[in-house]
Parts: sequence; structure tokens; C-alpha cells
Amino acid sequence: MQDRFMRALRRQPVDRTPVWLMRQAGRYLPEYRATRARAGDFLTLCKTPELACEVTLQPLNRYALDAAIVFSDILTIPDAMGLGLTMVEGEGPRFARPVRTAEDVNRLEAPDPETALAYVGETIRLVKRELGDRVPLIGFAGSPFTLAAYMVEGGPSRDFARLKHLLYNDTDTLHHLLDTLSTAVVEHLNAQIRAGVDVVMVFDTWGGILSTQAFTEFLDYLWAVVSGLSRSLTGDPVPCILFTKGGGQWLETLASTGCDALGLDWTVDLAGARERIGDRCVIQGNMDPACLLSSPKRIRQEVGYLLDRYGKGEGHIFNLGHGINPDTDPDHVAAMVEAVHELSAPYHAR
Amino acid sequence: MQDRFMRALRRQPVDRTPVWLMRQAGRYLPEYRATRARAGDFLTLCKTPELACEVTLQPLNRYALDAAIVFSDILTIPDAMGLGLTMVEGEGPRFARPVRTAEDVNRLEAPDPETALAYVGETIRLVKRELGDRVPLIGFAGSPFTLAAYMVEGGPSRDFARLKHLLYNDTDTLHHLLDTLSTAVVEHLNAQIRAGVDVVMVFDTWGGILSTQAFTEFLDYLWAVVSGLSRSLTGDPVPCILFTKGGGQWLETLASTGCDALGLDWTVDLAGARERIGDRCVIQGNMDPACLLSSPKRIRQEVGYLLDRYGKGEGHIFNLGHGINPDTDPDHVAAMVEAVHELSAPYHAR
Repeated sequence: MQDRFMRALRRQPVDRTPVWLMRQAGRYLPEYRATRARAGDFLTLCKTPELACEVTLQPLNRYALDAAIVFSDILTIPDAMGLGLTMVEGEGPRFARPVRTAEDVNRLEAPDPETALAYVGETIRLVKRELGDRVPLIGFAGSPFTLAAYMVEGGPSRDFARLKHLLYNDTDTLHHLLDTLSTAVVEHLNAQIRAGVDVVMVFDTWGGILSTQAFTEFLDYLWAVVSGLSRSLTGDPVPCILFTKGGGQWLETLASTGCDALGLDWTVDLAGARERIGDRCVIQGNMDPACLLSSPKRIRQEVGYLLDRYGKGEGHIFNLGHGINPDTDPDHVAAMVEAVHELSAPYHAR
Repeated sequence: MQDRFMRALRRQPVDRTPVWLMRQAGRYLPEYRATRARAGDFLTLCKTPELACEVTLQPLNRYALDAAIVFSDILTIPDAMGLGLTMVEGEGPRFARPVRTAEDVNRLEAPDPETALAYVGETIRLVKRELGDRVPLIGFAGSPFTLAAYMVEGGPSRDFARLKHLLYNDTDTLHHLLDTLSTAVVEHLNAQIRAGVDVVMVFDTWGGILSTQAFTEFLDYLWAVVSGLSRSLTGDPVPCILFTKGGGQWLETLASTGCDALGLDWTVDLAGARERIGDRCVIQGNMDPACLLSSPKRIRQEVGYLLDRYGKGEGHIFNLGHGINPDTDPDHVAAMVEAVHELSAPYHAR
């Protein structure tokens, strides 16, 4: 197996900095749009293992990426909880039955991943079979707080007023919800591990909207997720990457969860982050996805800058600082991946 | 004059922590909505000094606030540049003629504040007359980068793709735009100082979307604004408050601009910020505006928590961490202001 990604996660020496992209299987690829059109809609694509497998592999067939990530969505958990998820084009997810009250929360149960979310495990098994020994496969889930944010708001929100209402008026109910979601996330990730993923990633998309006080209060649920992970089928620990968007202030706190790697959004300086985190966590990131809209030359320059900010030695996985923009030119992704591999060699010379 | 606010800005001892609220003259007040209805629309309200003066004073008549802030908008500068500003209800500002190319930028000139923005000076003179010796008056402007973000996007944006396009493809043009805007902001703030404001504040609403590298690159323009400020009519330096939303990672960098106070959004821990900044800057902030939607009891608890996080001694101005939510109950604001004054006394005991 091309194991640069696994080696980097274990802080072992590598020949080049490994690279993959958040949302690398996505709308910027014409072949993705074709498969999606065949599926009809986004959720059907997620729930049809053959098609989800197909789009998972598409970016691997184009680029020399060092990891695959299973095609799925963080909202599969609340969907399996029966909240009536629909994806509204150009607007985002909507829940027909949002979670607003203590009664709503009491009714929720962590879905059984082997039944309600069986399609994710099936996709993983298909991908592993197709992928063979090429590169490792990443499974993922949303963080409990991020799932709660979507479930409580029920649709797009600027200021998360409903979620904050719970936070300030009925913290117990929010804690109950986060507790249920922690169980669901751990069970879902462990089912993905049983199905064969090599690494898991937790997307905490909305943690950055919290005060430091509230973020720290809810850290228990991130800790519960990280510490609840099973070992792999072969008995090895499965590395966990934790990504809190807007969490640049809290890197030390995030590292204390015991995760193996921290994903950084594009606002964070890699040199500063490395200094703060030391060898407690590997660092993953963090090119501004908007830079991919520029030109191959400018992208190469930015890759060089970021590699230089991280500096020599192990512990860096190159990625974007957020999901790839759907308007990205696929050739620009090629330029980025090539630049990472070409320009990073000197940083790993022994 | 009730000079708690001025004394706090100069790090002099005070009897209580001074308090005001970002957007304290706003839609949450029924009397504001009445005046706004008389004006017809938001921009007419901004541009009619008698009405702008009236709404500036409304929150002062309700609450024991320690400062007034002139009712205006950061987009008065691009409006005066002829970009065709309209405020779209429930959506935000739109420009009929957004700024996208080098030619667009070349055409722009810093507006003469004494003619194109004369209404702001006139509002300030009216407010100072009405306000008399009650409390100090704050003038304000947007930061050059934040104004550029609105002017280039031209309307609501999730990812600021057009702005980032300039940033990564044509940095020279963006620098040219920021240079013109720095001149405009300095001239506008100095005109407000000539008209009588006691303090100025710079709102950098969108600085937080930048990478650390880009934020540092554009810091020159914040520095230019802070260092370009005139002395007051009486020859005193006019204190400057700088607020970068999402800038919690960069407090030391922001303090290096020479501003007198840093506004903090609600994500930043006050104790951590005070430790990082020391006595280089006064700290203003930073209650989550969503907390004002809870209850007087919960609000009082949060005020107590924040006062405690800042701790004893001078150098703190209480405020929200972002503008007040229009759905806020006016009685909740009363609870906050009273709690700040009541609970802060022990922190200033000598």
C-alpha cells in the first residue's frame, strides 16, 4: 500500500508530504456530476453503495492522492434518526422534524449502524475491494455539536439562534442531545472501522461559533468520540483526525482530546500551530480552497509557501483548509497534488 | 461628563466597568422601528441627521449606557463613491456597480467627507448638542478590507469567491483598492473627529476570513488607519477601538497597530486575551449576543462570568461580542446594563 498517509499519521518518516482534499469526491468533477445525475439526488447517491463507491474512487483515478475518503455525508446520522432530511439545492440541508425541545430529544435514539446506516458499511466494503492496496481509506462522521447544530436549526441559519436558545436557556437538554449524538457517532465510526476504514475523521464544522467557555464545556463529547473508537480488524489503533473549523484559538484544547491529527482551517498559520502543538498531534491542512480557483502557477506558489511554513520533518498531511469549491477546475487540483509531491521532497530528506 | 468610558480607554481607575452595545441603536427597540418607519428606509434614516440623531439617543434614554455611538453605517463610504448601494430586507447590502477589475479600482476616489458624507458630520454635531455632557460619543468606519469585501462581492456571499479571486490572481489591484479605502477611512474618521466624536471605532467585520499570511499582509492598512487619526478639537488624542471579528488568533498582531482598545468577539476568552495583550490595549467585549435572547437571570449570570474572567483592575469595557440581535427583548438589555454596573463594583475596589 502507498502508506505515506498512514506513516505521516504515526509521525514516521515519509518521502513526500501526503496529500488529499476535503470533499475530493464532489461536484467539481464532471464524472461526479454524471454519476450524481444517474442517482437523481444527493441522498440517493449516498445511499446507493455501488454509486457511492464509484464517486469515492473517481478522484483517485485522476490524481496521485495519498488517501481516499468514503463518499457519504455527516447528516446520515440524523437522517437515520428519522428527522426527515432533504438537501435543498443552493441552500443546504433541511430537516422536516427539527429537534427543539426536551421531548424531541427524549424521543431520539442512536441509530443502529448495522441496519439504519448499513449502506455506509456496504460502500466501505465495496471501496476497499476496488481500492485494493492502493491507498488507505478514511471514514468520517460529524461531531456531536455540529450534528446538534443542524438538527436544532433544521435549516440554514446565520446566527444559530435556536441552538443558542437551548445553550443559554436549557443546557441540560442540549447536553442530553450531545450525549445521544456522541453514542451515535462512536457507534457509526466503529461500524465504519469494522467495515474496513483505516482512519477516521471527525468534522466539527460549527464548533467555531461557540464561546471558549461553551466550547470547553462541550469538549467532553469530542473526547468521548475519540476515546470510544475501536481498534481495526487487525488489532491496530485507528488514527483519528479532528477538524474544528474556526478552532484556531483552541488547538491545545483540541489536542487534549487524544486525537492523532488536527485538521486546520486556512486561517491558521502552520508554523504557529506546529509550535503550539509540538509532537502531540500531526497537523493536516490548510490551503485556502479559494486559492484553487486561481492558476496552476499561483497554486504551486501557495503549496510551496505552506510546505515552508510547516517546515522540515514528519507530522504534516497536506490538505485544504475546508472542502473544495464546486467551481474548481479539475486541472488545478492536479497542479496542487503534483506541487505537494514535487516540492515536499526536500523537507523529508534525511 | 460620565467619563467611565474615556477613563477605561486611558486605563485609568473607574468605579464600575463601563458598558455599551454594538448596534445599541437598532431594530430591537420599538422607538427605533417607529423612526425608521418615518424615514422610509435604512439609508434615508442614515442620511437624515435629525432622524439619525434621534435614534442615536434612543438607547441612552432607556439605559444607563456609558457611551453613545453615532447612528450610521460602514457602507456610507462605498455609497459616497457612487457604487449604488441598496439595503435588501432580510438579505443585506447590494451594490449596483461592484468593484471587480483594475479599471473599476482606478476609477474610485476617496469621497470628500465634508461634502459627500456631510450628513454624518451633521448628525454628530446634532448628537453632541443634544447629548451635552452625558456620555462620550463614538464615531466609526469599516476597515479597508471589510469595505473591499462588500464592494468586490457586491452582495451576500458565503465564500467571498470574487474577493479571493482578486487576492490570489491580482493582489496588486486589491492593494490599490485597500490603499484608496485607507485614505477614505482616515478622512472620514478625521471628519467625524472634527465634528466632535470623542472616540473612534474601526469595524473589521470580515478580516477573519483571511489566512494569517493575508491578514498580516493587509495589516498595513489597519495600521495606516490607526496612525492617520487626528487629535480632537481640544488637542487630545482620540482613542481608537479596533474590532476584527474572527480575529481571536491575531490579538497580538492587532495590538501592534497602536490601537487603544481591541474589540473581541464572543469566541475569545477574556482571561486569555488579557494575558496575551497585557496593558498594550484595553479590551472591549464580549458577551455572545445570543445570550441576550435568554432571560434576565441567565444574562446576569453571564455578565458575572465575563467580569470574573477579565478580573480585577482597569482596562475592560463591557460590550457584546457582535451586534445585538434584532429579536432581543429591550428589558433584557436593561438587565445586562444593570448587571454590569452592579456586579463590576468589587472588581474596581481600591
